[in-house]
Amino acid sequence: MKYDYDKLLKFDLNIKNHGKSKYESPLNRVIMSTEDHKMSFVTDEERILVINSQNEYEEWKKKGIQIPSFEKAGPREKIFFEPGETISAVVTCGGLCPGLNSVIRALVYMNYYRYNNKITYGIRYGYEGFIDEYDHEILNLTPGTVENIHKIGGTVLGSSRGPQSEMSIVDKLVKLKVNVLYVIGGDGTLRGASKLTKEIENRNLKISVIGIPKTIDNDIAYIDKSFGSETAFSKACDAIDAAHIESKGAPNGIGIVKVMGRHSGFIAANATLATNDVNFLLVPEMKFHFDGPKGFLAALKKRLDRSSHAVILVAEGAGQEYFDGAEKKLDPSGNEKLNDIGLLLKDKIKNFLAKEKIPTSIKYIDPSYIIRSTPPTPNDSIFCLQLAQKAVHAGMCGKTNVVIGFFNGEFIHLPIDVAVSERKVLQADSELWLSVLESTGQPITFINNEIGTI
Amino acid sequence: MKYDYDKLLKFDLNIKNHGKSKYESPLNRVIMSTEDHKMSFVTDEERILVINSQNEYEEWKKKGIQIPSFEKAGPREKIFFEPGETISAVVTCGGLCPGLNSVIRALVYMNYYRYNNKITYGIRYGYEGFIDEYDHEILNLTPGTVENIHKIGGTVLGSSRGPQSEMSIVDKLVKLKVNVLYVIGGDGTLRGASKLTKEIENRNLKISVIGIPKTIDNDIAYIDKSFGSETAFSKACDAIDAAHIESKGAPNGIGIVKVMGRHSGFIAANATLATNDVNFLLVPEMKFHFDGPKGFLAALKKRLDRSSHAVILVAEGAGQEYFDGAEKKLDPSGNEKLNDIGLLLKDKIKNFLAKEKIPTSIKYIDPSYIIRSTPPTPNDSIFCLQLAQKAVHAGMCGKTNVVIGFFNGEFIHLPIDVAVSERKVLQADSELWLSVLESTGQPITFINNEIGTI
Amino acid sequence: MKYDYDKLLKFDLNIKNHGKSKYESPLNRVIMSTEDHKMSFVTDEERILVINSQNEYEEWKKKGIQIPSFEKAGPREKIFFEPGETISAVVTCGGLCPGLNSVIRALVYMNYYRYNNKITYGIRYGYEGFIDEYDHEILNLTPGTVENIHKIGGTVLGSSRGPQSEMSIVDKLVKLKVNVLYVIGGDGTLRGASKLTKEIENRNLKISVIGIPKTIDNDIAYIDKSFGSETAFSKACDAIDAAHIESKGAPNGIGIVKVMGRHSGFIAANATLATNDVNFLLVPEMKFHFDGPKGFLAALKKRLDRSSHAVILVAEGAGQEYFDGAEKKLDPSGNEKLNDIGLLLKDKIKNFLAKEKIPTSIKYIDPSYIIRSTPPTPNDSIFCLQLAQKAVHAGMCGKTNVVIGFFNGEFIHLPIDVAVSERKVLQADSELWLSVLESTGQPITFINNEIGTI
Amino acid sequence: MKYDYDKLLKFDLNIKNHGKSKYESPLNRVIMSTEDHKMSFVTDEERILVINSQNEYEEWKKKGIQIPSFEKAGPREKIFFEPGETISAVVTCGGLCPGLNSVIRALVYMNYYRYNNKITYGIRYGYEGFIDEYDHEILNLTPGTVENIHKIGGTVLGSSRGPQSEMSIVDKLVKLKVNVLYVIGGDGTLRGASKLTKEIENRNLKISVIGIPKTIDNDIAYIDKSFGSETAFSKACDAIDAAHIESKGAPNGIGIVKVMGRHSGFIAANATLATNDVNFLLVPEMKFHFDGPKGFLAALKKRLDRSSHAVILVAEGAGQEYFDGAEKKLDPSGNEKLNDIGLLLKDKIKNFLAKEKIPTSIKYIDPSYIIRSTPPTPNDSIFCLQLAQKAVHAGMCGKTNVVIGFFNGEFIHLPIDVAVSERKVLQADSELWLSVLESTGQPITFINNEIGTI
Repeated sequence: MKYDYDKLLKFDLNIKNHGKSKYESPLNRVIMSTEDHKMSFVTDEERILVINSQNEYEEWKKKGIQIPSFEKAGPREKIFFEPGETISAVVTCGGLCPGLNSVIRALVYMNYYRYNNKITYGIRYGYEGFIDEYDHEILNLTPGTVENIHKIGGTVLGSSRGPQSEMSIVDKLVKLKVNVLYVIGGDGTLRGASKLTKEIENRNLKISVIGIPKTIDNDIAYIDKSFGSETAFSKACDAIDAAHIESKGAPNGIGIVKVMGRHSGFIAANATLATNDVNFLLVPEMKFHFDGPKGFLAALKKRLDRSSHAVILVAEGAGQEYFDGAEKKLDPSGNEKLNDIGLLLKDKIKNFLAKEKIPTSIKYIDPSYIIRSTPPTPNDSIFCLQLAQKAVHAGMCGKTNVVIGFFNGEFIHLPIDVAVSERKVLQADSELWLSVLESTGQPITFINNEIGTI
Repeated sequence: MKYDYDKLLKFDLNIKNHGKSKYESPLNRVIMSTEDHKMSFVTDEERILVINSQNEYEEWKKKGIQIPSFEKAGPREKIFFEPGETISAVVTCGGLCPGLNSVIRALVYMNYYRYNNKITYGIRYGYEGFIDEYDHEILNLTPGTVENIHKIGGTVLGSSRGPQSEMSIVDKLVKLKVNVLYVIGGDGTLRGASKLTKEIENRNLKISVIGIPKTIDNDIAYIDKSFGSETAFSKACDAIDAAHIESKGAPNGIGIVKVMGRHSGFIAANATLATNDVNFLLVPEMKFHFDGPKGFLAALKKRLDRSSHAVILVAEGAGQEYFDGAEKKLDPSGNEKLNDIGLLLKDKIKNFLAKEKIPTSIKYIDPSYIIRSTPPTPNDSIFCLQLAQKAVHAGMCGKTNVVIGFFNGEFIHLPIDVAVSERKVLQADSELWLSVLESTGQPITFINNEIGTI
Repeated sequence: MKYDYDKLLKFDLNIKNHGKSKYESPLNRVIMSTEDHKMSFVTDEERILVINSQNEYEEWKKKGIQIPSFEKAGPREKIFFEPGETISAVVTCGGLCPGLNSVIRALVYMNYYRYNNKITYGIRYGYEGFIDEYDHEILNLTPGTVENIHKIGGTVLGSSRGPQSEMSIVDKLVKLKVNVLYVIGGDGTLRGASKLTKEIENRNLKISVIGIPKTIDNDIAYIDKSFGSETAFSKACDAIDAAHIESKGAPNGIGIVKVMGRHSGFIAANATLATNDVNFLLVPEMKFHFDGPKGFLAALKKRLDRSSHAVILVAEGAGQEYFDGAEKKLDPSGNEKLNDIGLLLKDKIKNFLAKEKIPTSIKYIDPSYIIRSTPPTPNDSIFCLQLAQKAVHAGMCGKTNVVIGFFNGEFIHLPIDVAVSERKVLQADSELWLSVLESTGQPITFINNEIGTI
Repeated sequence: MKYDYDKLLKFDLNIKNHGKSKYESPLNRVIMSTEDHKMSFVTDEERILVINSQNEYEEWKKKGIQIPSFEKAGPREKIFFEPGETISAVVTCGGLCPGLNSVIRALVYMNYYRYNNKITYGIRYGYEGFIDEYDHEILNLTPGTVENIHKIGGTVLGSSRGPQSEMSIVDKLVKLKVNVLYVIGGDGTLRGASKLTKEIENRNLKISVIGIPKTIDNDIAYIDKSFGSETAFSKACDAIDAAHIESKGAPNGIGIVKVMGRHSGFIAANATLATNDVNFLLVPEMKFHFDGPKGFLAALKKRLDRSSHAVILVAEGAGQEYFDGAEKKLDPSGNEKLNDIGLLLKDKIKNFLAKEKIPTSIKYIDPSYIIRSTPPTPNDSIFCLQLAQKAVHAGMCGKTNVVIGFFNGEFIHLPIDVAVSERKVLQADSELWLSVLESTGQPITFINNEIGTI
């Protein structure tokens, strides 16, 4: 089972609205441009089931409880905020991720062209941008200023890590007369957004907070896919190709690549499949051991004997237990600073092969910053656009405390609290992991016993 | 509703097997390399529902009939053919499509490394390669010969269009002692494959025929995604960027791009979203008219007045009704040869703007062959690999007359007859089309009345 | 011999200056930031010889005349216009070419940061932008507005073809108080620029006109390399790869690619070498014949017999003599509209192979607009930057009626009149053509006798 | 002055031949395919002057000595080895460099198709491949086996570092009946090749040794351009773009990129110009200091004050004097192992800004292995092809102890001893460096006094 459904059942999966939507959506007029047709608006009653398999369906039936489902995202016929008069703000927080600028551009276009809202503020450098003492400029984003930004990686707004005072942020939102705030960020940022909605509620304000989940690791719960993650593993393939080529360039050559993935190995697993050239994949979800006849090093030696070269891919969060002595540090987002598993691998292998008297040449590649700052692939660009479309629809009809998710092939409204309630991880019995094993052919003997119970 | 479920209910959705599987899958041993763990094999009982929405689910419940479902693809614990002794052949038919070589490479790797089958024949130039009189060489594909082919577009096997005698093909399969034939091709090719299985059955042979659906247009029924289609619309973005740039390079500049899409506008729709720069999209599913105050040309003029440039994207099958006088020709696959809607658009617009005394510069780009021959994107490469993995699993456990599909997020075994029973089209009330309208802002006034009923 | 030196000797190769340079170049201060060092400024006395071979050198010695040479480009210690106060304008004319935006960006940066000139006007849509009746906006280009334009193809200024009244242009320059005008365009545009300098001289004004030669065909005399031409043949390789792949995808497959090259086959020749996969190259400089045992078609048949596929690359200006009956039309730049040699080739080959009963599949690709609108390769970007650097140096020290050239490895000041005096063509005895023949292995039997005398 | 001409004058610039060429070149027949025309063969008398400037030319004239010149490369009419019967071998040594496979492919094609030589041996893993005890396979390279290798980075032959016994190598060449050995490698490798020719001469054998200079740093004397170097700086631009984006993504963000360049900063300088986004460039040729009001750190602070972000590019060999205490280690090629200047920069800056209480985010990127293993750009591919063409011509006409160079726009035969006699470095008074200073605007105050005297 992918998720802890018992936990899920404790949440209210309905989405909070500011109140009754009284305005006619301008979309029908803008898009249809004719009285003869009506757009296919979405209603709040359309919901997406959490399962897709017949067997699970039968199980739920037996339990006799309603199968949980999520509200479908999309344009509503009636909206809460006045089209043409709604003021928005957008902020990007945390580390860079491919697609940020595409999301920003699409938010501006959607507001400007489809809902006739001419004012979208760009908040600079994350939550810092709301705080007066940092003295960051408030940008005015128009179609002209964002026209070409999707060709450039990163975020034109800049970003920063860590929380800021909700009081001060809401003060600034009020001062700017913002009706809808679009927050693009990861779980820490979304927790901050959730607190914002509470402060807004306490003050009895009608400001919507719409989250657009940003996680290059693709590890947010009940969100099958996050923007930028396809670009990330796509770009990682270049580094794996390089490692493969380097490994074949020298007798017993070894190429090691480290990619993002603090807690979840999705980037690494997908890059493994995309290249079909990785021989060993190490991910944070599966602990492994180096030594002994069933250990990683013995398996590597076997591989070299057979093929004279090897490619190893490791997600940054893997093997952190080997640094147990090391002092833990936190970054400003509150994430633990990871130790460099790539370097450790390189050293362990070097020493092992030296002892075994096997000449080698080990090349270690860490492409992380190059990956983060890449512009999105076309497929990711579509996803960024659609997230922004759904976000603006959600904002205009007065939803709040919600993130735009993508689940079982549909865009959904997911309560922020559900999104941050657990972390999505790569499971040992998943098809993705099975595909990886079939592709790498790596023995699972060096994966520790926990594998079956993850 | 996406599909004609009444039609679907008439088909037997169970998959034909050659008989009882008696061999132990070697995968457990190869991958697990330990007695302590078992792979998570898939059973024939796991099935994927055809729906994912709560509302549809309630509807089916009311009807009181079993919701239709498809057999899940994946490795089985017991297999029909002897691992290490099974001989395979692979053939590619019809037009080029990104990813062909990746599928071929993965079929060879899977057979060679995971099932220990050392013989995989490569049949040259489509079904022609089975026929003696063409005198095409039979290739012997090994990991060494296919190592780098995924970096190259096209198919290393070559291809051809049109059917060949099933008798002769089966004769050759018997002569080569082939156990499993992998057929990569579109609906015509799959119909041929279906006939092959009948001939095989008539002769009481145990040869599996596994289809891997190839449709760059992504228009095969009950298959959400086909390999190469992401690459196709991704690459099309380059041409749209070019058209956009050309259009902005001259006063009232117009860029027209024609992309693949005989009956379905999926490539065009996705490329529209990926660039978010298309102003008018024309697809085969929606008839349109040029003239009058609500016509396409009037809408174009309005756009030029407002923005001084315009980008038009058209799928090749659109507007074919404007060539009604023209003689219909068929290609060897039996597809009707299409007239060039791009040129017609260019002429119509040129004449119209000349009459309106609006100076312009119109650039028409047809990137089709460049798109077809591109190597796959990393995400498409994953998909090619997984199709091949599932195909080899299906072949080894003796399934036949089946194509590997991808539906509601899962790989499935789809009876060939279901796959070719109808065509998947872009629907006027789909989210994809709605996204397109939101992105282009094109008025639907020039789309003919039929729109609501497609 | 590459050029007509007798013709060259008739020109005055010295460059016109507006007068004595009296201002200290700010570059020394800006760059060196210290009294202790001096920049290595260039003087007007540094000149580059037109030859590089010992044998030619001996020949000239025998003739007893001074070997011709060009003035070296680069920063001068004393400049004519006042740094910080000089107003510039930049205009782009004619067809799109990779690198236009990089040149514009670098002109703005150089003026702004190195010479402290804060005003650079961007003239829209070519020479049209100077003419009031067209009513095009005059842009104000700053580092902020041009920051990311180099990532986008085309020209942010827009372009147009054809001349406009010199009187009106100079009127507008005077009105805008422009000191230096940077004209980016081809031979027609440069001829216009030359006329401008005459009008300026007649009015006794001190306005510099600096040409930056734009010719995607790389066919301007005494200019070894023009910006965008490397990008052009680089991008053309994608189309050739596609043609190659398509040709190998079908029995006797043939891929035809048409690239730019009205009078000169440089793009085609370089793309041939870059791919090393072209079997037949046809260029405008070498007439060819189709029929007979030594004709092109016979050679193609031989190739198909041997290898079952063929790739043909043709420059658009080749074989125009086969359209002799066709009416000649001119585009607004005064260039003759070319007939489509690619289509003619396709038809001729189709008919020929049909007669020979050789089944085939012919794919014709015309990637021209995709090529034109590509952003520049990094190497081309360097070249764009350096052209702009030299152009601003030339402008600031009061040179006029000059284009920035690149010759024998050095940037030079070339009188506009020399640049437009003849056209650079691919010569039958050049190393480039020899390399092409070695790469293609094409017999020269189908090239007409004129080959030796081009 | 670029080179030490006094040193040059001490060398014999004539190229050693094995003896009189008695065979007719088959090229005339193969290429011209007609008696009516003759190819434009090159003669040994054609020579390229070492200078191109009029001023230098006058200087040499005054000195009264013959201006030095190099023999032109290219096909000769008479050749030494029998076409169709000549056996070749090719070996790649040292670190990976873009274009290796393109050179190998072109060597095979040229031998096979143009000189009808059907046997070209591929020696695996550098000079190791000649030595029996390593037991590496000798490959047989044919057009079929090398057809697609140019799309893949690295070398299909593999490589290794360090010399092997010349005796054993010549023994193996004799055993394999090799007539021409093509050695692709850097200065160490070429020194080895020179020793080989001596051993060959001592044994009175007629085996040609042709060097193809491989130096990703582009630092071989009298060779203006080496294959792979354009690709290297082109690919480096991706990393600089990433650093630029990261730097703009955080308040006072700093991006540091380290690229190849042990002794020469050419990759770094060219990448600086290609992106036009680097603010500080540090190269091995110019020592610099960190501290004080004129130091690097003060200049960096100024930049941050002005623009809130900075991009720093450093060549790996820069600032090695800051590691003086560190133990020197050599790699197997005899190159000193460099300390990581990128990390040192990061630490110094971090500490400095912490002291200055300037919040920052520093991202350090080392893209070296990704750069090395990239396939060549199209322009580099041309260069690889032409090097191989000239190399095979040189080999077939019996030249030996020669490298194929490119100088003043022409391919030349350069004696190996001249090529390894000095190192090409970036000079403080060169146009390239001046362009860099104009692009970065970096003050030279932090460059040490030595700058003028390099």
